[in-house]
Amino acid sequence: MTTELARAESLIATIPDFPEAGIQFRDITPLFADGPALRAVVDAVTRPFAGSFDVVAGVEARGFLLAGAIANAAGVGLIPIRKAGKLPRPAASITYDLEYGTDKLEAAQDLPAGTRVLLVDDILATGGTLRAGQQLLEQLGYTLAGTAVLMELVDLDGQQVAGPVHTLFEV
Amino acid sequence: MTTELARAESLIATIPDFPEAGIQFRDITPLFADGPALRAVVDAVTRPFAGSFDVVAGVEARGFLLAGAIANAAGVGLIPIRKAGKLPRPAASITYDLEYGTDKLEAAQDLPAGTRVLLVDDILATGGTLRAGQQLLEQLGYTLAGTAVLMELVDLDGQQVAGPVHTLFEV
Repeated sequence: MTTELARAESLIATIPDFPEAGIQFRDITPLFADGPALRAVVDAVTRPFAGSFDVVAGVEARGFLLAGAIANAAGVGLIPIRKAGKLPRPAASITYDLEYGTDKLEAAQDLPAGTRVLLVDDILATGGTLRAGQQLLEQLGYTLAGTAVLMELVDLDGQQVAGPVHTLFEV
Repeated sequence: MTTELARAESLIATIPDFPEAGIQFRDITPLFADGPALRAVVDAVTRPFAGSFDVVAGVEARGFLLAGAIANAAGVGLIPIRKAGKLPRPAASITYDLEYGTDKLEAAQDLPAGTRVLLVDDILATGGTLRAGQQLLEQLGYTLAGTAVLMELVDLDGQQVAGPVHTLFEV
């Protein structure tokens, strides 16, 4: 790991008991607020997939930050994967299980089948949301070029659900 | 307007009666899906503020897409302005009026007072959300370097509420 990446990792704060008791929340906003750190992680998270994707997809809402930055860095467009009801013309949707209840994601079809998509998010936890995102992209006929996140919570074993996922940092 | 910007504008779709009857929804996802168009709008929306901001702020959720892209293009960090309850350490919050009811935005304090912030969003409608974002940044002691959006719905006169707002496209 480069010095700049190590510094970027050091900016991620751990907040105990948020959003509920017993949860150690990983707060990436200090990393995103730092220009050189943000650029270093964008470069590193994208590097294994250089030249192999036509567009980047991010899951609402935090995944949009990284997707926007990667789209600009790679000179490609982006696909927002949204919570249900936000898109006027959803072409695909998927309902998936959360710890309590379910959630639903939707995406529009603005690109032709076969388009190569890099799916990104900030954190890999259980992998449920990323797996749903992968399946949504498949429904649209896109080719998954890869899945990448900044940080993996390894105890939750999300690689079993959504892997292989390229990750920069592990806790 | 350059040819590329005119092409980018032509990619914005108008969807009648979404999210409710009588509303003409402006759908920017086809523009964001197109790499050259996205890069052209990022350049054009940022250009008047080149060198005059230290960080870019975007409002959840669609504002995150543009903020991420601009952060990378300008080599600066970004500040996510979030809906209430999402941030573990909100340092400022603001409640503002919607057509029906109210909404609340929050932000963390990851940068020192005096930091120059460019506030961006995709669309300027009534200006209420952008005005709330401006006030939130002021609460944190930041200096507003400017406010910029892709598209302005001119009939709603949001410039009166949140102006001056730099806009690329008008409808």
